[in-house]
Amino acid sequence: MALGEDWFTEVYPEGGSAFSLKVLEKLHEERTPYQTIEVFQTETFGRLMVIDGCVMLSDRDNFIYHEMMSHPALFAHPLPARVVIVGGGDCGTLREVLRHPDVEAVVQVEIDERVTRIAEAYFPRLCESNDDPRARFLFDDAIRWMQEAPAGSADVIIVDSTDPVGLAEGLFREPFYRDCRRVLGAEGILVQQSESPLYHADLIAAMHRGMAQAGFAGAVLLNFPQCVYPSGWWSTTLAGTARAPIEFRDAHARCKAFQILYYSADVHRAAAVAPEFLREALQGAGPVEGG
Amino acid sequence: MALGEDWFTEVYPEGGSAFSLKVLEKLHEERTPYQTIEVFQTETFGRLMVIDGCVMLSDRDNFIYHEMMSHPALFAHPLPARVVIVGGGDCGTLREVLRHPDVEAVVQVEIDERVTRIAEAYFPRLCESNDDPRARFLFDDAIRWMQEAPAGSADVIIVDSTDPVGLAEGLFREPFYRDCRRVLGAEGILVQQSESPLYHADLIAAMHRGMAQAGFAGAVLLNFPQCVYPSGWWSTTLAGTARAPIEFRDAHARCKAFQILYYSADVHRAAAVAPEFLREALQGAGPVEGG
Repeated sequence: MALGEDWFTEVYPEGGSAFSLKVLEKLHEERTPYQTIEVFQTETFGRLMVIDGCVMLSDRDNFIYHEMMSHPALFAHPLPARVVIVGGGDCGTLREVLRHPDVEAVVQVEIDERVTRIAEAYFPRLCESNDDPRARFLFDDAIRWMQEAPAGSADVIIVDSTDPVGLAEGLFREPFYRDCRRVLGAEGILVQQSESPLYHADLIAAMHRGMAQAGFAGAVLLNFPQCVYPSGWWSTTLAGTARAPIEFRDAHARCKAFQILYYSADVHRAAAVAPEFLREALQGAGPVEGG
Repeated sequence: MALGEDWFTEVYPEGGSAFSLKVLEKLHEERTPYQTIEVFQTETFGRLMVIDGCVMLSDRDNFIYHEMMSHPALFAHPLPARVVIVGGGDCGTLREVLRHPDVEAVVQVEIDERVTRIAEAYFPRLCESNDDPRARFLFDDAIRWMQEAPAGSADVIIVDSTDPVGLAEGLFREPFYRDCRRVLGAEGILVQQSESPLYHADLIAAMHRGMAQAGFAGAVLLNFPQCVYPSGWWSTTLAGTARAPIEFRDAHARCKAFQILYYSADVHRAAAVAPEFLREALQGAGPVEGG
């Protein structure tokens, strides 16, 4: 059947697929110096943020993405005091990071301030920790920022960006990984959203190779469902400077003092298991664990 | 953007969402006494079977569903010699079941013979084991068949049906579960596709309660991605007559003599881990394990 005007549709041409949500109204549309940002009120997914036609997040299922972008990396680090978020303008990842009492300072380097201002207006729950005195907001080019940041000045770097086209392309390349490697301390962890295991196994393998070439000791892929992203199956990659971040502070994850909806120590371990076809696709990816 | 005529779209009204695949041509359309079956050639997902407007399977990602409908249950049973498949007309589950050397006989009870004939014509790889002498095809009403089948005559029952509306509705109700319980032996396992954990947590909890009320000792939910089904996240439920089928023949799963694309012993264990919100939703579901 054909969808009427009351649907938002994201076509993913490379996958030959499209995902649509029924929309009640468009709440906002704005062309910033970097991109076009839209906010919709949907029928069943709450509010929806779209950038350049691609779904960024919905009220209904962003918890999965934001929890998986933050808690596995923070529990994999022995003492994650200093965190850098690259992108992350909607502030959902930041909120999860700030739940960790070990975190002393978070710098968020987002190129487009309007993403954050629009999130504050339309996704207030994601921004509810923005006044935390540990959080600092820079609206700047993260690639350049990472080139200039002091060596060993971060424990965890979270790359919470859009897809590897246009603005975010450089965030998926070896020179950026090399800068992250330098900025991370001896026990540092880099985490980056790594697209769909169904659609992008080649990209994931290339990311793992790039991280290995940039000096990371090993990487782990974590799988999770994400209804609003192409294929509904998404992933994040954790790379460690000292070792592949397979082990994590299991006891701390089990007795954490905050309540969340998706992540648990068991979920963390399960997410690292790669299905057979993916294990095979990642086997050529250098001195790196596929999960 | 609006999708043109060269897209097949399945709207899932309850979820307020829709999934579309780009189509090259419609290969077949047929109204049977039970339903309307269509087959499309898609651009990137190979062939696509649609029944009454709902996606049944695509060439590209059916391996995940069919492997997860068969191997976990068969490895959870100590000696799965006698298998019954309810529905399963596309024969993809049957093919996976027949990979197991312990299987001596499979009866497939599908109400609509045309599903199988169309699968033979358009999805020949799924039907490549249909001539196996261990397989027997009945085209009949499985609810009535189960009422009449002898007690203790099956080791594993696999309910590979459409959604719990119309034809398949009775397959999700306690009386059917009670018949399955009787037909299964002392160590029997029932496995049933159990819809989307994102959209149908209530239905899954009701299924688990119904299975408990029908005399099953416990149930386990297994999660997996399935791009072409609503939300892209799907599940299957295993219920055991003697115990919740949490443990399985791990050593056999690790050294199985056949090669597959998704399932492994590690995947089996990981799929049984429920995210926090789902663990909570399933806690009220009787003497049953949520994973």
